[in-house]
Amino acid sequence: MKTFAQMTAEELRRERDEARAAVDAFASRGLKLNMTRGVPSTAQLDLSGAMQGLVTDKTGYLSENGTDCRTYGLPDGLPELRAIFAELLEVPASQVVAWGNSSLNLMFDMLSQCITQGTTQGGPWGKQGEVKFLCPSPGYDRHFSVTEYFGVTMIPVAMTPTGPDMDEVERLVSGDHSIKGMWCVPKYSNPQGVTYSDETVRRLARMPAADDFRIFWDNAYFLHDLADQTDALLNILPEAAAAGHPDRVFQFAATAKITYAGAGVAFFASSEANVAALKKRLTMQSICPDKVNQLRHARFFGSAAGVLEHMQGHRAILAPKFQAVLDALDTLDGSGIVEFTRPHGGYFVSVDVPDGCAKRVVALCAEGGVALTGAGATYPYGKDPRDRNIRIAPTFPPVDELKLAMELFVACVRLAAAEKQLTMDN
Amino acid sequence: MKTFAQMTAEELRRERDEARAAVDAFASRGLKLNMTRGVPSTAQLDLSGAMQGLVTDKTGYLSENGTDCRTYGLPDGLPELRAIFAELLEVPASQVVAWGNSSLNLMFDMLSQCITQGTTQGGPWGKQGEVKFLCPSPGYDRHFSVTEYFGVTMIPVAMTPTGPDMDEVERLVSGDHSIKGMWCVPKYSNPQGVTYSDETVRRLARMPAADDFRIFWDNAYFLHDLADQTDALLNILPEAAAAGHPDRVFQFAATAKITYAGAGVAFFASSEANVAALKKRLTMQSICPDKVNQLRHARFFGSAAGVLEHMQGHRAILAPKFQAVLDALDTLDGSGIVEFTRPHGGYFVSVDVPDGCAKRVVALCAEGGVALTGAGATYPYGKDPRDRNIRIAPTFPPVDELKLAMELFVACVRLAAAEKQLTMDN
Repeated sequence: MKTFAQMTAEELRRERDEARAAVDAFASRGLKLNMTRGVPSTAQLDLSGAMQGLVTDKTGYLSENGTDCRTYGLPDGLPELRAIFAELLEVPASQVVAWGNSSLNLMFDMLSQCITQGTTQGGPWGKQGEVKFLCPSPGYDRHFSVTEYFGVTMIPVAMTPTGPDMDEVERLVSGDHSIKGMWCVPKYSNPQGVTYSDETVRRLARMPAADDFRIFWDNAYFLHDLADQTDALLNILPEAAAAGHPDRVFQFAATAKITYAGAGVAFFASSEANVAALKKRLTMQSICPDKVNQLRHARFFGSAAGVLEHMQGHRAILAPKFQAVLDALDTLDGSGIVEFTRPHGGYFVSVDVPDGCAKRVVALCAEGGVALTGAGATYPYGKDPRDRNIRIAPTFPPVDELKLAMELFVACVRLAAAEKQLTMDN
Repeated sequence: MKTFAQMTAEELRRERDEARAAVDAFASRGLKLNMTRGVPSTAQLDLSGAMQGLVTDKTGYLSENGTDCRTYGLPDGLPELRAIFAELLEVPASQVVAWGNSSLNLMFDMLSQCITQGTTQGGPWGKQGEVKFLCPSPGYDRHFSVTEYFGVTMIPVAMTPTGPDMDEVERLVSGDHSIKGMWCVPKYSNPQGVTYSDETVRRLARMPAADDFRIFWDNAYFLHDLADQTDALLNILPEAAAAGHPDRVFQFAATAKITYAGAGVAFFASSEANVAALKKRLTMQSICPDKVNQLRHARFFGSAAGVLEHMQGHRAILAPKFQAVLDALDTLDGSGIVEFTRPHGGYFVSVDVPDGCAKRVVALCAEGGVALTGAGATYPYGKDPRDRNIRIAPTFPPVDELKLAMELFVACVRLAAAEKQLTMDN
C-alpha cells in the first residue's frame, strides 16, 4: 500500500471520494453512538449486581470493628475496605483514606485545600502569586478543567512511551518554584495507555522542585489490565520517601471503573503527614463518608484477591472491544495517516491523525452519527497545538456497534487525510 | 422552694454535699454514656431498613427518566428525589440539587467556592481582605469550625426566642460590607430549638447588606417536629427574591436525620443563578452524585407525603426522650439555677446554667460517666462569654439511660450552682 504522501492527486481524489461516500452512507443510516467518555458498559456494571444484597437488615450494618455504618463515625473510612485497597496500592492502611463516590472530587478538594490552606511544607498556594501545574499531554481533560477552574496556569509537557518527557519536567520544576504541581495518570494513562517506566517514577520522586511541589498521582487504572502482558508500575510513595520528599505525592484511586462509575468508593493514599492534613479537613468538611456503600464494597470484594478476580470480568468484556478498535485502525496500516497506541490496559486508545485533521475527523464522525471526545480535549485549555490527537473510548458500546463506529472513524480519517494531502500537494 | 440565691450558707452546703454524694454515687457505678453529638438512635436508623432492598438487580437501576443510576450522569441529582424535596422545601425542582451524603459538605464547599471563585454578585471573597460572618449564638459548632477553617472572622450575635437579634444583625451588615455571610438554622435551631419568626425571616430577606452577602440557611430540622404544636417557618427564598435579593440565600437540607446519619442525601436549594453557579462547579468537581443511593431514597419515600409519614416514626421514638430531659430539668423548677428551652422539634435541648458554671457542669458529668458536648462549643471559637450554655442531645441513648444521665446532670448543676453561690456569698 502506498502512503497518502506517496499517492498521486488522482489516487488521493479516489480515496477522498470513496471515503466521502462511506461517510455519507453512514449518515443516511441514522446511527447515534456516543463514544465521548470512558464509561463502563451495562455488562460491566452488572458484574457488581450481587453487591446490593450484601448490606440489609438481615446481614446487619456493622463493620468488622463494630461500628454501625449507617451513622456518623470512621472519618477516614471503613477499616476493612481501607485494608483491601492498601494491600492493592502497596501502602500501609494508616496511609489510606476511603472516601466518597468520586476520586475526581478528592483531587478537586485537595487542590482547593492547597490553594486556601497550603501544604505541610508551605502556606496557601493562593497567596503565593501565580501558581503553575505541569500537564503531561495528551492527558485527562477533567484534570485540566479542575486546574483551569482554580486559575492555575497549565504548562503542557510531552508524553513519551515511558511517561512524561522527564528532561523537560526536571528542567522546568528545578528552575521555577511557582510550579507547584503536576498531574500524572501513571498506569495505562488517559488517553494513551502509557505506563510510566521505573526510571520515570524514580526521577519524579527524586527531582529537585519547590518544597511544596505536589504530584497528583491519579492511579485510576491501576487494576485495569486488558492483556496477558500487563504493565508493572513502580510504587512511587516509598521512592519519594527515600529521596527525602515523603510528602510529594498525593495518590488517588477509585472503584468507579471497578464497581459503579457513579456510586463507587474513592481512595487517597499518601504520607502520614499528608493523610493527617487531609483528615483534619475531612472531619471539618463532612463528618464521615458513606460507610454503608463502603461496607457493601468490602463484603462484595472480601479481599484484595477478590478485587483482582473481579477485574477479570471486566477484562473479558473489554478486551474484545479494544481488539475491535485496533483491528479497525490496522486497516490503515501502511497509509502513514495514523499513529496509535496498543495499550495493555486502561480505558482508551489514543490516535494521532495527520496534523490539523483531528477537529475535521471528529466533525466528520458526528456527521456519520458517532460522537467522539472533542478534538483538543486531551490538551490543556482544549488546545491541541498540532490538532491531531483523538481519544477513542471503546468501553461503552457493544462490540458490533463499536465495529460500525470504527468503520466510520477509519473512513473519516481517510477522508480528512486525503483532503489535507490534496491541499498540501497543490 | 427557695432559689439558690435565697439560700443560707448552711442550706447551700447541704445542697452541695447532697449533690456531691449523688455525683460520686454515679461515678462508682461505672456508667459510660456519650451524649456529645446529635446522633440518631439505632431504633431511628432501623426505620429505614426497607430502603436497602429497593435497588437491586431485580428492581433495576433506572431512574424514572431512564438513566442508569450506576453510571455517570445527572449532575444535579435524581429528578424524582429532587422533586420530592422540592415539594417539601416549597421550591421549584429546577432550583434544587440533590448531592452526596452530607449537607455540611455542601456548606463547606459553598463557602470554599465563595472564597476562591466569588459569587454571582462579586469576585472571590479571598481577594477582598478580611471576611466576616455573623454567627447567631448559641449555634452549631460545626458551622463555626468550617468558618474558622477558612480564616473567616466570626461575629457572635445573640439568639432571641424569635431568631437572631435582628436589630443587631441589621446594624452590623448595613455598616460593614466585609460581612459576607451569616449562619442560620432557621427551624428548631441547634441547640435551642428556636424557629425564626416571619418577621425575622422578612428582615433577613430585606435588610441592606453587601451585594455578595450570603445567608447559609441550614434547614437541617425542617421536618423534625416533636410535638402536636409544630412551628411554621416562612419560606425565605421568595421573600428574598421579592425584596430584590434573589441570590442572597443558600439553603441546605439533608436526610441525615431522616434516613441515615452517614449515608443519606443532602440538598441545595437557591435561586436559579446560584444553582447554575453550583452546578458549574459540581460538574468540574465530581461528575455526579451517588445516584444509586438517591434512587434507594426516592423509592423508599415514594412522595413528599411518604417523607412526612416516615417522620412520624422518628417523632414516636424521640418525643419520650425529649420529655425525659424536660422532666428532669423541671425538678430544678424554682431553684433559679437553670433556664432551658422546650423545643417543638429538632435535636437538642439548650440549657443555661449559672454564669461561669457550664464548664464545671460538663466536667462533673464526665466524672459521673456521661460525656456532654464541650461547654463553649455552641459559641464561635469555642468561647461562651458567660460560660453558661450546655447542649443536651437526647436522641441517641435509650430512655432509661437518658433518665439516668439527666439525673446525674441535675445533680451536677446543683453541685456547680451551690459551689458558685457559696463563693459569691463569701
